[in-house]
Amino acid sequence: MRIAVLNGPNLNLLGIREPSLYGTTTLADVESRLMEVGRELGVDVECAQHNVEGRLVEIVHAMRGRVDGAVVNAGAYSHTSLALRDALTGVSVPFVEVHVTNVYAREAERRHSMLASAALGVVVGLGTHGYELALRGLVYALNAGKGRA
Amino acid sequence: MRIAVLNGPNLNLLGIREPSLYGTTTLADVESRLMEVGRELGVDVECAQHNVEGRLVEIVHAMRGRVDGAVVNAGAYSHTSLALRDALTGVSVPFVEVHVTNVYAREAERRHSMLASAALGVVVGLGTHGYELALRGLVYALNAGKGRA
Amino acid sequence: MRIAVLNGPNLNLLGIREPSLYGTTTLADVESRLMEVGRELGVDVECAQHNVEGRLVEIVHAMRGRVDGAVVNAGAYSHTSLALRDALTGVSVPFVEVHVTNVYAREAERRHSMLASAALGVVVGLGTHGYELALRGLVYALNAGKGRA
Amino acid sequence: MRIAVLNGPNLNLLGIREPSLYGTTTLADVESRLMEVGRELGVDVECAQHNVEGRLVEIVHAMRGRVDGAVVNAGAYSHTSLALRDALTGVSVPFVEVHVTNVYAREAERRHSMLASAALGVVVGLGTHGYELALRGLVYALNAGKGRA
Amino acid sequence: MRIAVLNGPNLNLLGIREPSLYGTTTLADVESRLMEVGRELGVDVECAQHNVEGRLVEIVHAMRGRVDGAVVNAGAYSHTSLALRDALTGVSVPFVEVHVTNVYAREAERRHSMLASAALGVVVGLGTHGYELALRGLVYALNAGKGRA
Amino acid sequence: MRIAVLNGPNLNLLGIREPSLYGTTTLADVESRLMEVGRELGVDVECAQHNVEGRLVEIVHAMRGRVDGAVVNAGAYSHTSLALRDALTGVSVPFVEVHVTNVYAREAERRHSMLASAALGVVVGLGTHGYELALRGLVYALNAGKGRA
Amino acid sequence: MRIAVLNGPNLNLLGIREPSLYGTTTLADVESRLMEVGRELGVDVECAQHNVEGRLVEIVHAMRGRVDGAVVNAGAYSHTSLALRDALTGVSVPFVEVHVTNVYAREAERRHSMLASAALGVVVGLGTHGYELALRGLVYALNAGKGRA
Amino acid sequence: MRIAVLNGPNLNLLGIREPSLYGTTTLADVESRLMEVGRELGVDVECAQHNVEGRLVEIVHAMRGRVDGAVVNAGAYSHTSLALRDALTGVSVPFVEVHVTNVYAREAERRHSMLASAALGVVVGLGTHGYELALRGLVYALNAGKGRA
Amino acid sequence: MRIAVLNGPNLNLLGIREPSLYGTTTLADVESRLMEVGRELGVDVECAQHNVEGRLVEIVHAMRGRVDGAVVNAGAYSHTSLALRDALTGVSVPFVEVHVTNVYAREAERRHSMLASAALGVVVGLGTHGYELALRGLVYALNAGKGRA
Amino acid sequence: MRIAVLNGPNLNLLGIREPSLYGTTTLADVESRLMEVGRELGVDVECAQHNVEGRLVEIVHAMRGRVDGAVVNAGAYSHTSLALRDALTGVSVPFVEVHVTNVYAREAERRHSMLASAALGVVVGLGTHGYELALRGLVYALNAGKGRA
Amino acid sequence: MRIAVLNGPNLNLLGIREPSLYGTTTLADVESRLMEVGRELGVDVECAQHNVEGRLVEIVHAMRGRVDGAVVNAGAYSHTSLALRDALTGVSVPFVEVHVTNVYAREAERRHSMLASAALGVVVGLGTHGYELALRGLVYALNAGKGRA
Amino acid sequence: MRIAVLNGPNLNLLGIREPSLYGTTTLADVESRLMEVGRELGVDVECAQHNVEGRLVEIVHAMRGRVDGAVVNAGAYSHTSLALRDALTGVSVPFVEVHVTNVYAREAERRHSMLASAALGVVVGLGTHGYELALRGLVYALNAGKGRA
Repeated sequence: MRIAVLNGPNLNLLGIREPSLYGTTTLADVESRLMEVGRELGVDVECAQHNVEGRLVEIVHAMRGRVDGAVVNAGAYSHTSLALRDALTGVSVPFVEVHVTNVYAREAERRHSMLASAALGVVVGLGTHGYELALRGLVYALNAGKGRA
Repeated sequence: MRIAVLNGPNLNLLGIREPSLYGTTTLADVESRLMEVGRELGVDVECAQHNVEGRLVEIVHAMRGRVDGAVVNAGAYSHTSLALRDALTGVSVPFVEVHVTNVYAREAERRHSMLASAALGVVVGLGTHGYELALRGLVYALNAGKGRA
Repeated sequence: MRIAVLNGPNLNLLGIREPSLYGTTTLADVESRLMEVGRELGVDVECAQHNVEGRLVEIVHAMRGRVDGAVVNAGAYSHTSLALRDALTGVSVPFVEVHVTNVYAREAERRHSMLASAALGVVVGLGTHGYELALRGLVYALNAGKGRA
Repeated sequence: MRIAVLNGPNLNLLGIREPSLYGTTTLADVESRLMEVGRELGVDVECAQHNVEGRLVEIVHAMRGRVDGAVVNAGAYSHTSLALRDALTGVSVPFVEVHVTNVYAREAERRHSMLASAALGVVVGLGTHGYELALRGLVYALNAGKGRA
Repeated sequence: MRIAVLNGPNLNLLGIREPSLYGTTTLADVESRLMEVGRELGVDVECAQHNVEGRLVEIVHAMRGRVDGAVVNAGAYSHTSLALRDALTGVSVPFVEVHVTNVYAREAERRHSMLASAALGVVVGLGTHGYELALRGLVYALNAGKGRA
Repeated sequence: MRIAVLNGPNLNLLGIREPSLYGTTTLADVESRLMEVGRELGVDVECAQHNVEGRLVEIVHAMRGRVDGAVVNAGAYSHTSLALRDALTGVSVPFVEVHVTNVYAREAERRHSMLASAALGVVVGLGTHGYELALRGLVYALNAGKGRA
Repeated sequence: MRIAVLNGPNLNLLGIREPSLYGTTTLADVESRLMEVGRELGVDVECAQHNVEGRLVEIVHAMRGRVDGAVVNAGAYSHTSLALRDALTGVSVPFVEVHVTNVYAREAERRHSMLASAALGVVVGLGTHGYELALRGLVYALNAGKGRA
Repeated sequence: MRIAVLNGPNLNLLGIREPSLYGTTTLADVESRLMEVGRELGVDVECAQHNVEGRLVEIVHAMRGRVDGAVVNAGAYSHTSLALRDALTGVSVPFVEVHVTNVYAREAERRHSMLASAALGVVVGLGTHGYELALRGLVYALNAGKGRA
Repeated sequence: MRIAVLNGPNLNLLGIREPSLYGTTTLADVESRLMEVGRELGVDVECAQHNVEGRLVEIVHAMRGRVDGAVVNAGAYSHTSLALRDALTGVSVPFVEVHVTNVYAREAERRHSMLASAALGVVVGLGTHGYELALRGLVYALNAGKGRA
Repeated sequence: MRIAVLNGPNLNLLGIREPSLYGTTTLADVESRLMEVGRELGVDVECAQHNVEGRLVEIVHAMRGRVDGAVVNAGAYSHTSLALRDALTGVSVPFVEVHVTNVYAREAERRHSMLASAALGVVVGLGTHGYELALRGLVYALNAGKGRA
Repeated sequence: MRIAVLNGPNLNLLGIREPSLYGTTTLADVESRLMEVGRELGVDVECAQHNVEGRLVEIVHAMRGRVDGAVVNAGAYSHTSLALRDALTGVSVPFVEVHVTNVYAREAERRHSMLASAALGVVVGLGTHGYELALRGLVYALNAGKGRA
Repeated sequence: MRIAVLNGPNLNLLGIREPSLYGTTTLADVESRLMEVGRELGVDVECAQHNVEGRLVEIVHAMRGRVDGAVVNAGAYSHTSLALRDALTGVSVPFVEVHVTNVYAREAERRHSMLASAALGVVVGLGTHGYELALRGLVYALNAGKGRA
């Protein structure tokens, strides 16, 4: 089983940008932890980050027929990108959406996600640890035969 | 450390009601699994379910000064009960909100949660396994010193 | 065939409260008339009323596998209770919603029903006689093989 | 006592159009059944159908001082025609609104009726049998001295 | 100069329908008074009334190149008919909109007119006398060289 | 009979400000014409204009028990001043609202009037001639015994 | 004269819950002060609190024909409970609504009260002292012959 | 294969009404061109126009079982007529909606079509040539086996 | 301690204007009663009323550093004047907002107050007696050390 | 004459992604067919596709002064990209918007196009054949001297 | 060249009111600095401030034909005064709107300006220095021949 | 002190695209003028432009710890890009937003800026000269010790 982890705009600054809000764990820390959890769960984990919406679309395209599921934190594009939702439903890869902070306790613009209705599930507000929970939840669901037909 | 697990209306029917939507795991199964995970994590887990909004409010009151965090699936009251949010913020118990199904892919009434902005985090759509992820995420956050001051 | 008749908050005051609006027929009168109509139609009619939303949820739970249909006047909870809709769809009991007064000619809060989209049908504004029409319509529909699959 | 039954646009196709939604009973079947029920109740029943909004307005005008009440299924005009409501309130004929299908479980455009606030009552979703219930409810209310002063 | 006076649905009942609201002057009274005022002002006045939206559209078409202005009370269609506005702008006949009652003091549906933005002016709430004021205002404006280029 | 004519902010610039929109007739012209029409109709006409909302309120107060009706063009305050509506309903003076331009064909802010629902009638878009029509319509209505009880 | 004081969900925590927001006066303190004020004013004061919406409905039912007025702080149910408003209007007991904090300076959900339009008056933001003001205001109004006919 | 071309209100004025907006091609020109294109494509083309909504409904009824598809320009009724959509879905005739002008660049009322969600496709803003494109697109789709099941 | 009492537009008509709504107590009565209550409470009370928004702003400016709190009934400006809120927060004088009538049971425009979110508290619907309650509540709060820092 | 054909995000997956929705024709098929139609019409056709919004903006910039018109299917960016509309109006190239599926029968997010109000015309829901219709319609309009001045 | 600087309600408190928000520069400081900048730019600068909306309207009237441009900070009236916009467009004086604080980062009521759409430009959030920038920008634009035709 | 000037999509066409709207000054002209002003003010100015949202995000990232403030005209992304706001707040660089045209006098989509609430200030509608004003205002504010903590 192969799982892609996809991070969107500004998440390259994780651990650096607004640490009181996002914590001090860097994206590299997150990714190496997810690889480790992947090994524990017996799944291959591959990680990518991009700031360009269209490039994220293309990274998703490249998942088609090659990965079994995805953990996606599209950052601000979660709230504005229909193109990314189209890409994810277009390649039929089940995914779990992650947000590091509790988006429901922040500005109104962050309360609606363009991706959530197409996701298998959503994990919000549990810090960078949320990625690990999302990965575990995704693999559990895929093993249980779930996903999007 | 002591964690309360609180389930709201209709969740006593879990595993029985609309299994194509909610699965076949019963609430008793969920609760015994959470006790097991609690033992693994070294925390006491206590479980309660009630269909009456005001009784849920009182169960939350009884948590004050006695439990360190809560996993809460308030079912339909998540979307309509300001009283329950008041109870949870009133006793200052950090909690993670759980939904078994992906509420963002269902009717419009389920897209807004009265509890989410007061929660530490939210886990949505990952089936009954979501309770376990929420418990793990909550304990991880409490150990890391987080919660709501 | 067994039909449940369920009344919600304040309907215990029927015939007493605001008679210019709700008339002078009491809930006991309504229930005994429905029993009589039930005998005429050859169906068992059982009646319940409760003011507590969560108790109404539980009365609905108790219908599961035991009654074939329900006549439901959830009073004010018709307009606010997602929990009650969840209970009714959860036990898969076809029901007809009743309102004694014409809710479309009253305050804006009463114009939307949380239950209506899940109901087989709705009877509004025909006074307490509306219960009888709803019962007849429900039994007719059940005999014709309708309901919610 | 004289009762008019008025059907609006597309209802001439009843029993033919989308039978999975509207059933196989034709408008002629409905009308002859209502005549039969009228005889049982001792009231004269006259039936009309038209597809043109303005002609429906004129049929309503012709009811003035001649009929005691009306059963009205204005089809799609229920949701768009203020002119028809004006006609009905203009001639002061009490009426019960009928819809064959459960309009609350269909498209958003069908959720609001221009007529309902002016009606004595509304019967929705109980199939073509709903006409009979509406007729019985209307005659019952008129006998009880109700209507719109 | 030739002026058309056009009345819409239900206005054939003027003086008969809801006299406490619309008064006791009939449409025939209104039309003969307008003819009289026309003679005083030296303009030909022709009158028409129809209940069918599409027929009103056609009456407007027939004004093209033949009448210099119109006084229009489209009744309920004022609030719902884009087709009538299209007809009026299509034939380029300047018109004054009239309402017998004060539509701003009635139901919300009557507060917006589909015609008003295309009209030269609007006279509201001054009873059937409003037609005369509208006619005088229209002729005054046409004499002053106004209209819609 | 005594009629007050009240003009609001910026109407002292009538005939000067934006002549392509408001024409070249000045406020003095309008007022002298209204005096003349008043003499013709056998009513006393008194005129006032003020740019300050609160002073307009006080001018209305001074009408109490002294004038029988008013013609009011409150300019921009028509769309924003609840205080002026309160003053007008407070002194129980029936009034006709006037607008020189067709406010329904201009910016959205001008489409709603705070005064209209309390007015006897409204005359819109017929230029400065609209004042005269409003005065005639008001006197006609007062003679016919209308007004606001 | 007999006055009921009714408190809703979470108000049993008064003086304990969020003291920076709600102060340190307990519900028992409030109730004994109100009894004292009642004695001063020569009225009987009876106090009740409940967390369950439907039980509050029933406590209101029990006021019928027995109490002359009520002071009501329905807590969060003020903003969500149509059933409670129905109960209060159903028993025709004039009441004053109280809120300890200034609800207009808090979250959007608290800005609209379901009860306020049916109340005699509302006292907001004056701390627990507000109960006393509400009681005095209520008794003053009842003595002056006010209430809801 | 048989194709109906249906035009709605005011389209009889095509080529005459507002030529700067709608061009100078008349409806007769359009219809004869469509017949010609029909011959080229080997399909029978029949044309109708009516200004009355209910008559358009009846023309659609008459298509049932007789025509294979339709090109529909319902003019202003496109934006207001649920009855016409009901007729078109009722007879299960696949259709392409046409608008001569770019409705998205005009008034807000024209931005929403009641028909579009039930159409096979929509052609907007390409002048009277749009009818021909719609006809070609419709025939192509029908030949490819598309339509609405 | 010094308290200002400020009344806005139309309140000079108190006791005169719409007595069925506002009662027969005049503003002079209210002010002399408040002086009396002030003497009882040992505070100086000064009163002012103005109909002009900008003058009310200036009266508020003059309170700066001279009065300890204010009782404010801004009449219609309560619902429209941001300038008055700015003045009140600008001079940092804690105030209680008063309305004589129950604004929540009147027109929609009166349901929102521009001042309420900046007030210490609000007293609504208790007639002119509400001023006295507001004054007592304000002095009580100031003595208890409250206000807005 | 030179025509650009521009495709946006995810359209590189045409024929592969969700074939039940988008069909099995690939983008390469579409582009070669359009070249062929171009040859038939005597116009040069050049094709481009990109997933990055900003790159699409730059491709449009490069059209300036070089192409006479464009056929644009901006995919999801049609609904979210103001930058693309600015680019298209900035270079003054007339264009026809295309959508393969009927966007009006899908999710709410797809019902509004940012581009449509700036387009010459729009072709929706006619499958990949819609590109050809758009090209023919565009060339026809350009030959007829239309476009956007 | 002559430039007017106009300040609205509460701006007489500049430097005194809420210094953490508005700074400590007084209005006199601002005005003398603007005079100085005016001398540098070779333009006459005249300054006025008023708290009364209608007086601001009159100050604007007095600019007609006498000043070439204006710098306007209408304070709270920026968000509520249509009368002031009418005055400014009525005298055809080009103006730049200024706000000392960043109104987009404050309450929702301050996000919309009634004046902005009629202004030449807007300078927001740059403190009292913003006046100087506005003056420079205005003079630059006027010298470049801009303004409002 | 180092200031970055950042321009977004389509601004490379400045001076070329729609000159009647945007003028004839090119981006190169603007940048060289800003360098010149920078030298006058003793600050280093560096300029960048990009059409790709994600690349703008990355250019902002590169400002972290290297520049003291920014002048940002994000073009159309101002109205749609939450990612860009996140980048700007993420690197804690104070910035002034600029728009060449008066966005409040254009289409509705341009009235709301995603960036404005995070900006120090905003300069709108003063042409390309606005960049210089923004730069001066920014440097003035930074020298005065302002910015966003």
